[in-house]
Amino acid sequence: MRKIGVKEIEDIALGASLLGSGGGGDPYVGKLMAIGAIRETGPVTLLDPEEIAGNAFVVPIAMMGAPTVLAEKGIGRNEYRTLYDMVSSFYNRKIDALMPIEAGGVNSMLPFAAAARLGLPLVDADGMGRAFPELQMVTFTIGGVSATPMALTDEKGNSTIFKTITNKWTEDLARAVTMVSGGSVSISLYCMEGAIMKKYCVRNIVTRSEQLGKAIRSVKQGTGTPEENFLAAAEGCKLFRGKITDVLREVRGAFNFGKALIEGSAEYKGKTASVEFQNENLVVTVDGEIRATTPDLICLVDTETFIPIPTDALKYGKRVLVVGLQCYEAWRSQAGLAIVGPRYFGYDTDYVPVEARAGIQNRGGRA
Amino acid sequence: MRKIGVKEIEDIALGASLLGSGGGGDPYVGKLMAIGAIRETGPVTLLDPEEIAGNAFVVPIAMMGAPTVLAEKGIGRNEYRTLYDMVSSFYNRKIDALMPIEAGGVNSMLPFAAAARLGLPLVDADGMGRAFPELQMVTFTIGGVSATPMALTDEKGNSTIFKTITNKWTEDLARAVTMVSGGSVSISLYCMEGAIMKKYCVRNIVTRSEQLGKAIRSVKQGTGTPEENFLAAAEGCKLFRGKITDVLREVRGAFNFGKALIEGSAEYKGKTASVEFQNENLVVTVDGEIRATTPDLICLVDTETFIPIPTDALKYGKRVLVVGLQCYEAWRSQAGLAIVGPRYFGYDTDYVPVEARAGIQNRGGRA
Repeated sequence: MRKIGVKEIEDIALGASLLGSGGGGDPYVGKLMAIGAIRETGPVTLLDPEEIAGNAFVVPIAMMGAPTVLAEKGIGRNEYRTLYDMVSSFYNRKIDALMPIEAGGVNSMLPFAAAARLGLPLVDADGMGRAFPELQMVTFTIGGVSATPMALTDEKGNSTIFKTITNKWTEDLARAVTMVSGGSVSISLYCMEGAIMKKYCVRNIVTRSEQLGKAIRSVKQGTGTPEENFLAAAEGCKLFRGKITDVLREVRGAFNFGKALIEGSAEYKGKTASVEFQNENLVVTVDGEIRATTPDLICLVDTETFIPIPTDALKYGKRVLVVGLQCYEAWRSQAGLAIVGPRYFGYDTDYVPVEARAGIQNRGGRA
Repeated sequence: MRKIGVKEIEDIALGASLLGSGGGGDPYVGKLMAIGAIRETGPVTLLDPEEIAGNAFVVPIAMMGAPTVLAEKGIGRNEYRTLYDMVSSFYNRKIDALMPIEAGGVNSMLPFAAAARLGLPLVDADGMGRAFPELQMVTFTIGGVSATPMALTDEKGNSTIFKTITNKWTEDLARAVTMVSGGSVSISLYCMEGAIMKKYCVRNIVTRSEQLGKAIRSVKQGTGTPEENFLAAAEGCKLFRGKITDVLREVRGAFNFGKALIEGSAEYKGKTASVEFQNENLVVTVDGEIRATTPDLICLVDTETFIPIPTDALKYGKRVLVVGLQCYEAWRSQAGLAIVGPRYFGYDTDYVPVEARAGIQNRGGRA
């Protein structure tokens, strides 16, 4: 158990934006909301999963939809209170702790805002260990945990409770309501007991985000070059480095699809990389050869500051380092790959771990 | 209180298809479901609104979406039981009676199937006195009654509860879920106490449907010509008669929009009528001059059998009589016209009662 104040939030937001793998939107908006709430009500208590009782009622909170829309329309004054009331009255029990459901951008920050405003502790865990575009893409789905009953509310005061036969149906129904509600809503789903949470969650992701954020801030203080320090801290495989020469974008369904082309520099001179994304980066190729695919994390960071660049901020001329991070182990199982592997996203290729593609046997140690 | 068996169902279905004003789909499918349920479980008890206690819990049941889809995918074995459980557990009270929410096609019949299967009585009332395309278009909206909490379930077992700030939001959110669910779902909304129901409902619409159905079957047995007998029984204004020469259709959003052109015959020879619809018939013009608009009922019936023709069955060559029926009085108020008047549907014209446009001061007496 420890307290998370404004200083920690800054580091967590920065680190989580790396784990976002390009998705989750600009963490700035979420960070402002978390900081605003903490300034008003005091630091948030962060609990290790082991500090949660097996029969405690743990409720994830997130936003669904486009983070860019959230940035414009904001979150209603009472949305988290509404979610609390919906969940606790539907389940007829009080909520013991909140939890983030994904690491990355806005959704790594909003649970802090909710925890501060509701006076509840937050669990240091999530259901992805990164960001993914669809609701069913959580480790809890592998564990057979239902996303529903799920609560959804918008800033106007409309609210919906879903109960579905699969977590993919949750995604489809909730996505439809999100779009009609203007493109961004607040949700609680995968409400569960502590024992289930502990069995399937990705542990200590908030702490890892914080460590990553700190490391990004201090890349110039390590023993190697800033890039070496960054790669060591992120436990990342260097996949490419160069200048963005083109970004193609397409909005389909409720998702941002697209592709960035990168012209190589230094040891990659003369080569071209392509990064394809659906909200999050999905596949990176170099001269047509795959270097990494989902569910491994494909992250683009600024070559000077090492600050992660979300897919919606990619643009011509940016100089980027492309890094591959190993995903949470459970995603590499057959059940995990069925949910978030390359084939789910329409790529006719088998998953090969990023470190195997890169010919690297082991991750580097932590910074 | 009286019992509704298979024979009554036949008449109610026929009469309700006239009140459907072209909408609500082919009553045949709904009729089969109602008859199937009644054959299994016995006749349904129909209660006059006055027989309902002020504090009784009355729950409307309907299908939302495209009746043509319903005809193909059907209704799941447990949908009505699911709706019952959702509503009674969300409100934490047992349901005393069911009610239809609209007269017309499928939705005049499904409440009988539900009442038979759940062993509940049905109230002889609805919220429209006809059919309308959107959820908020009920007399209860005029009375300020909320459509929500509303329950929605599909044949696969997915279910949703909505709570919205306006009944138009209910329409928008539920329509989105309906479309994603494959285009047809079962719903309960405007769940209310007997006192509220009695204050705003359209009374005895089931009985009126039955009388209309009987009258249509016996148009050849009256004192005048079959057409005179039909018009007297329907209390209808004759607006046009002729042969359909063209039908234009367009699916937009979740609705069937379109227009039928009719070439006049007999006293209408040389004239052309146009009937525009959004699921239900909205406006009829003769040589460009408006003869009737929503919320009055615009009904097309076969010139020989006087059987009503739903908009999805309109086709080239059909000989039709176009009849205008006065809508329920409350629809003619300012509050009513704001919800279902011609301007709501995009027509830049004031509402003028059909009998005034026709120069008829009084309705004819009943047959």
